Amino acid sequence: MNAVISVDLPQNSYEVAIAPGSLSQLGAWLQPLGLGRKLMLVSNPMIFRRYGEGAIASLEAAGFDVCHALIPAGERYKTLGSIQKLYDVALAHRLERSSAVVALGGGVVGDMAGFAAATWLRGIRFVQVPTSLLAMVDASIGGKTGVNHPHGKNLIGAFHQPRLVLIDPEVLATLPPREFRAGMAEVIKYGVIWDADLFQQLEQAKRLDQQRYVSPELMQTILTRSCQAKAHVVSKDEKEAGLRAILNYGHTIGHAVESLTGYKLVNHGEAVGIGMVAAGAIALQLNLWDADSNRRQTALIQKAGLPTRLPAGLDLEDIIATLQTDKKVKAGQVRFILPTQIGTVIETDQATPAVIRKVLLAMAEAA
Amino acid sequence: MNAVISVDLPQNSYEVAIAPGSLSQLGAWLQPLGLGRKLMLVSNPMIFRRYGEGAIASLEAAGFDVCHALIPAGERYKTLGSIQKLYDVALAHRLERSSAVVALGGGVVGDMAGFAAATWLRGIRFVQVPTSLLAMVDASIGGKTGVNHPHGKNLIGAFHQPRLVLIDPEVLATLPPREFRAGMAEVIKYGVIWDADLFQQLEQAKRLDQQRYVSPELMQTILTRSCQAKAHVVSKDEKEAGLRAILNYGHTIGHAVESLTGYKLVNHGEAVGIGMVAAGAIALQLNLWDADSNRRQTALIQKAGLPTRLPAGLDLEDIIATLQTDKKVKAGQVRFILPTQIGTVIETDQATPAVIRKVLLAMAEAA
Ligand SMILES: NC(=O)c1ccc[n+]([C@@H]2O[C@H](COP(=O)([O-])OP(=O)(O)OC[C@H]3O[C@@H](n4cnc5c(N)ncnc54)[C@H](O)[C@@H]3O)[C@@H](O)[C@H]2O)c1
Ligand SMILES: NC(=O)c1ccc[n+]([C@@H]2O[C@H](COP(=O)([O-])OP(=O)(O)OC[C@H]3O[C@@H](n4cnc5c(N)ncnc54)[C@H](O)[C@@H]3O)[C@@H](O)[C@H]2O)c1
Ligand SMILES: [Zn+2]
Ligand SMILES: [Zn+2]
Repeated sequence: MNAVISVDLPQNSYEVAIAPGSLSQLGAWLQPLGLGRKLMLVSNPMIFRRYGEGAIASLEAAGFDVCHALIPAGERYKTLGSIQKLYDVALAHRLERSSAVVALGGGVVGDMAGFAAATWLRGIRFVQVPTSLLAMVDASIGGKTGVNHPHGKNLIGAFHQPRLVLIDPEVLATLPPREFRAGMAEVIKYGVIWDADLFQQLEQAKRLDQQRYVSPELMQTILTRSCQAKAHVVSKDEKEAGLRAILNYGHTIGHAVESLTGYKLVNHGEAVGIGMVAAGAIALQLNLWDADSNRRQTALIQKAGLPTRLPAGLDLEDIIATLQTDKKVKAGQVRFILPTQIGTVIETDQATPAVIRKVLLAMAEAA
Repeated sequence: MNAVISVDLPQNSYEVAIAPGSLSQLGAWLQPLGLGRKLMLVSNPMIFRRYGEGAIASLEAAGFDVCHALIPAGERYKTLGSIQKLYDVALAHRLERSSAVVALGGGVVGDMAGFAAATWLRGIRFVQVPTSLLAMVDASIGGKTGVNHPHGKNLIGAFHQPRLVLIDPEVLATLPPREFRAGMAEVIKYGVIWDADLFQQLEQAKRLDQQRYVSPELMQTILTRSCQAKAHVVSKDEKEAGLRAILNYGHTIGHAVESLTGYKLVNHGEAVGIGMVAAGAIALQLNLWDADSNRRQTALIQKAGLPTRLPAGLDLEDIIATLQTDKKVKAGQVRFILPTQIGTVIETDQATPAVIRKVLLAMAEAA
């Protein structure tokens, strides 16, 4: 069963299609978009080895003239240097204004392919074919593209919306379990900030820590509901002026944990898990929501195989100091997205350092 | 006497202000724009030596916190490597989403500062303070930003409109005469494609080959009329889907001449001068306009000290072959912008290789 979700924007609206088996029909999916004949497929060697040939065969069968560019896997290659290589391939293949870039991979590939598309000939078209759960439910939707600066994540980039996001859930079969859990953190996030019904369906599942325990039906629900949430928020706030802030739920303390552990010990999804537990506990301290909701959130994060405690050895004061450098700080007060019930959040600066300290201390002690 | 021209766009309309002496009031001009406190001024060492200190003093007097980044002068530094240096300064100065980039320089500085602004934190605000005639009448207006790829000009870039274009004609006093003439080529272009009255006023001037022979009044007219033409075209066609093509008048053969002479022997303005003479002669061959109009155009280009003949040693067949690689080629036919009378042009693919060859041959023989 296919689902199609639309991202409605003043200019360049597009669809997110969730269609099992669609990767082998990629060419047919691209045909109605009115793209030129030339395409550049961007991927990484590992994903390309598994899915590249089939994708290219399907594109060529549909009449496209396809070249490809591979970037080594990993966040550390998400650099301007890799973009330069994409430009070189674009030039060698003589991509034109009518040409398009197709991203086949996780968020790293998607962010870079999108940035190359945003900046080649001042912007050519671009299609997302996300292969990781995180890219499917989050990174591929919304038009944020870019690379890291040696001293900071995602500092270089552009807003550039794709023409289509095509999700084939079948490729998740090969996704490493830890990457699956990273994506589940964002899925749970949508449940808490937006979709109480999704949250409940997740609660009813037996296991959520590995893709193979999740039924195709639940997987379809997870993808559809998550993409609907993200699409809705992006439609209301394309350039991150307001509503989009709720997507940062769990990310404020999450980012601090990620950066203090050098982006290695704890991955993004794990850090978001920890961040949501912390945000839930802060909300409880501030009487924004009740103990039962908070307990339900922690239980779900745990069921997804995500950590709910701070990693050992992390200094609480370092976390609090790092929060002060967050983009969300206004006049010295950290602004948090906090839940008021399952499915609803607010933005607030009520979380004092004393409250944050108390919550983090409890999350460390309990370890 | 100040002139203010508005560029009307669906989002982010802005003004082009032509105000003698305004550079020393830069801070006051920026104050109403609602920018954050932090600014990054981008320039080159030579322009910065002349005008940087005054600009920064004025900005600081208005309460801005200013850092600056200098890029060596010259088209060969219009690279991604230079942009990386701008990012480094942006990071060191901790530019935020509310911060802005101010470009103080010619088109090279403006294109690069604009691209850095377009891509830092996915786009921050940006002000153009053009100092060359070409940048004043052309490059600073319209939001095209970018850098060169080692194998092609302006292949990497983004559309990113400035919040203000502030033109102080007094800085033209130090512009080298050859650069002045390069700008005059674009001014004459506006006369031919858009503004017959501007064309006539230029015809009435005694000399146009050096800035010091042009009265402040005529200079004001030149700037105002040219910026009006560019602003109007950009307002109608922000992303180059249609009307904007008329700005390429003289540029089709111009680009071929520029690239075949290695961008050295002949500069952009000179190439555009040659290109307009060729386009005029082609239009005459096709009976699109009359001999008198054609003669008037050639005379005006000559009066501006610009070449009207092909440089010696250039192979006509190379020019014709280069035209085939032009972005404007559709189905093998080169599309030219050609004049029908002073002030009006059309786009056409009627110019056969035979006609082009005949015209170029005459422009070479006459040398
Ligand atoms: N643009 C946005 O809005 C947005 C949102 C969230 C995250 N991001 C970015 O996304 C990136 C993280 O994305 P990610 O989690 O997908 O990481 P990723 O792209 O590094 O992919 C994770 C790993 O999984 C592998 N992989 C992906 N799909 C696979 C499959 N089907 N089978 C086997 N292996 C597969 C990849 O090769 C990689 O090793 C970060 O750079 C982050 O900044 C962007
Ligand atoms: N973005 C656009 O729409 C657009 C349009 C046309 C051209 N361009 C770009 O603009 C560039 C050409 O611009 P340009 O002709 O200004 O070249 P430029 O920026 O190289 O400036 C020409 C020379 O004049 C010097 N100069 C500038 N102002 C001066 C002043 N007041 N006093 C003394 N010296 C001064 C500069 O240092 C430089 O050496 C090219 O890179 C071209 O691609 C962009
Ligand atoms: Zn996230
Ligand atoms: Zn030009």
